[in-house]
Amino acid sequence: MNPSSTVLLTDLYQLTMVQAYVEQGMMDTAVFEFFVRRLPPQRGFLMAAGLEQVLDFLEQLHVSPAELEWLKQTGRFSPSCLDYLETLRFSGDVHAMQEGTVFFPHEPILRVTAPLPQAQLIETRIMNLLNFQTLIASKAARSVLAAGGKPLIDFGLRRAHGAEAGLLAARASYLAGFAGTATVLAGMEYDIPIYGTMAHSFVQAHKDEKTAFEHFALAQPENAVLLIDTYDTEVAAHKVVALAPSLKQQGIMVKGVRLDSGDLADHARKVRRILDDGGLPQAQILASGNLDEYQLQQLIAGGAPIDSFAVGTAMTTSADAPSLDCAYKLQEYAGRPCRKRSEGKATWPGRKQVYRQFRRDGRYDYDVVTTVQASGAGDPLLHPVMTEGRRLVPAQKLTELRQRAAAQLALLPDSLRSLECDHPYDVRISQSLQDLALAVDQCV
Amino acid sequence: MNPSSTVLLTDLYQLTMVQAYVEQGMMDTAVFEFFVRRLPPQRGFLMAAGLEQVLDFLEQLHVSPAELEWLKQTGRFSPSCLDYLETLRFSGDVHAMQEGTVFFPHEPILRVTAPLPQAQLIETRIMNLLNFQTLIASKAARSVLAAGGKPLIDFGLRRAHGAEAGLLAARASYLAGFAGTATVLAGMEYDIPIYGTMAHSFVQAHKDEKTAFEHFALAQPENAVLLIDTYDTEVAAHKVVALAPSLKQQGIMVKGVRLDSGDLADHARKVRRILDDGGLPQAQILASGNLDEYQLQQLIAGGAPIDSFAVGTAMTTSADAPSLDCAYKLQEYAGRPCRKRSEGKATWPGRKQVYRQFRRDGRYDYDVVTTVQASGAGDPLLHPVMTEGRRLVPAQKLTELRQRAAAQLALLPDSLRSLECDHPYDVRISQSLQDLALAVDQCV
Repeated sequence: MNPSSTVLLTDLYQLTMVQAYVEQGMMDTAVFEFFVRRLPPQRGFLMAAGLEQVLDFLEQLHVSPAELEWLKQTGRFSPSCLDYLETLRFSGDVHAMQEGTVFFPHEPILRVTAPLPQAQLIETRIMNLLNFQTLIASKAARSVLAAGGKPLIDFGLRRAHGAEAGLLAARASYLAGFAGTATVLAGMEYDIPIYGTMAHSFVQAHKDEKTAFEHFALAQPENAVLLIDTYDTEVAAHKVVALAPSLKQQGIMVKGVRLDSGDLADHARKVRRILDDGGLPQAQILASGNLDEYQLQQLIAGGAPIDSFAVGTAMTTSADAPSLDCAYKLQEYAGRPCRKRSEGKATWPGRKQVYRQFRRDGRYDYDVVTTVQASGAGDPLLHPVMTEGRRLVPAQKLTELRQRAAAQLALLPDSLRSLECDHPYDVRISQSLQDLALAVDQCV
Repeated sequence: MNPSSTVLLTDLYQLTMVQAYVEQGMMDTAVFEFFVRRLPPQRGFLMAAGLEQVLDFLEQLHVSPAELEWLKQTGRFSPSCLDYLETLRFSGDVHAMQEGTVFFPHEPILRVTAPLPQAQLIETRIMNLLNFQTLIASKAARSVLAAGGKPLIDFGLRRAHGAEAGLLAARASYLAGFAGTATVLAGMEYDIPIYGTMAHSFVQAHKDEKTAFEHFALAQPENAVLLIDTYDTEVAAHKVVALAPSLKQQGIMVKGVRLDSGDLADHARKVRRILDDGGLPQAQILASGNLDEYQLQQLIAGGAPIDSFAVGTAMTTSADAPSLDCAYKLQEYAGRPCRKRSEGKATWPGRKQVYRQFRRDGRYDYDVVTTVQASGAGDPLLHPVMTEGRRLVPAQKLTELRQRAAAQLALLPDSLRSLECDHPYDVRISQSLQDLALAVDQCV
């Protein structure tokens, strides 16, 4: 079974609650919103991602005969619940921020309006998709800001948390501004540019390093990027120089070299000199090896002659903050606004909209979270994307979403562009929303 | 496309290296080993997991006509490479530690012996599968040790990194000793016991909390575990007590309550008293809410009257260490042992075996990593599991692997059972392996 496309990829309690709702006839309209409660440490902003996969999931939502049969044989579900599941489709509306939108805590990035059992059942997978891609896009955006325009490539698949994580991390990082990925499937599925060099094993499998370089260049004449740190980085750089003339005779230019260990800045300087002195000024230097945004910033600030970077594990696992403090919460049922008041986890009630205010120089100034009934100045960030279970517009191209994300990052105030982000962005809760919360609390 | 089952879920460089190997006729036998270079901070041991999914992947390895067509139209691959891929099957041998085995740095847990292009191509997915499940089983085992026998349930799907991560985290944590999971698909796919209660939204969707409890109990008469922290935990506990007599008249016993926020130990004590005084001594208390092994240890040490725990995000993302410093390295090609000497990333060459020595009380004493040719005292940990691309024995039942894991944890020396693990386990590199490394270095 493909875990990415089954409705059974959910928490058991979603199904048990559906059963109770069906039995009690609680089929009125519910409004749920997905938002982040607080930023991870050292973060100043988040970037919305994953909407496309959420809409796919909702459009395809159904329980297959085999799934229904399995549910039946567990003995846990009543006939009325199973009947309901048998014909289940998603018939609700969705409002959302577009992918690539920069957002902040307390701001809903997705609102679901649907009959209660439907809106409840989809909670787990919606959170699973939005948490992960938003997490990765937000982390990747930091590397993009730190790299100062130099190309970044996702090398993270091997330590991504499973298959879908690897694929969607390639998507989310490309959305956030990475130049491409090593993950071949992301090229096939999302038309993301794919990149690759060679592994240490390739060098080791040959009796000598120079022969390995030659064999690789012959097999990849257009893309001869040679990994030079298997034994001794500078010695290998000299081998590349020595090999270049005979490759040139065969019409092959050495495209570049990859550094993957040691002091990358120091190796890059030495290797740059060796390549330049050896008549290979066009050969680029790609650096990899446990890089994160802090190391990128340091390498860039130090002027290391590195042309592009591969970023893997730190980005693809969001290593310093591998989850978001996010929630998908019921905000209204049958026309009645509601909220949770659990200690440390209280939420703002009702259907909300977010308005963004801009400074004179075009940068973000502050946001206002308010009720949908209240009018707001500035740009509303939540837009209708699905009505009665159908997309309002066809899926946007990933390249367009990527341009949008880049435009969003360009408008960040400088205080949010630094990796430390010590001045939190101003998110205001409107008076109408504060009034609503008070009114809701008095009713319970 | 199901990302879990396509050979294109790989790094581009695997395919470019395959092309070079095919073109150079480098089809001799290669030996790769998967191992972990060092433990994450605060960890004393790791638990092997993910072998079953690796063997599935290898048995099913092929390139479909659609995948081949896509590779062709990229223009990156030569006809001889595409011909090779068209008929590709995995025909190699695999030796491995059984899932649930406790292991340590420098110890291979998987060895692949296969023609070089095959052994290379599978690297990315093997690492992706073994890194993740081993990471989660190792993290989950810490919670199992901390919980002192109290049942643990995986609640992590919503913040797992995508679909496969959620499903396989349920598997890995059950293997490591969790009692079950909330993930329904893990019940269907792996026959793991599934558990669930209710969400805050269920309470909020009702006009009053007591009615919500009643509706839930009616829908789940055998499994009435009520979430009591939506508004005020102790007030809700009194509502449960007030509701119990009328439920009893309908033949329903309150099975338990769930606490999900605030000071769990304090709430548990107060709620236990309310339930006991209210004639519900049988009602159990389940605690959840951002729990990790440290909080479990503290709650248990403090004697909090909590009967079971749900552990989510911290376990399913291995939040304090979301990746392993693991590698899949070429150790031998065409009968010639080899190793990588990159700074800080050097590896031990050749085919290896691991022998475990036991103390008189049956606990682990130390391990020896040695060449396969050398004989060793103690139990060898790597066993043949696949020959010429076929499993040697049918897939083991997950419940059997789980028993094995429990037996392994029971034999840990006390120094490794504590969460701090400040005394590293003794892993010795045999003289024969040290001699081989010296010999290999002199040949390059």
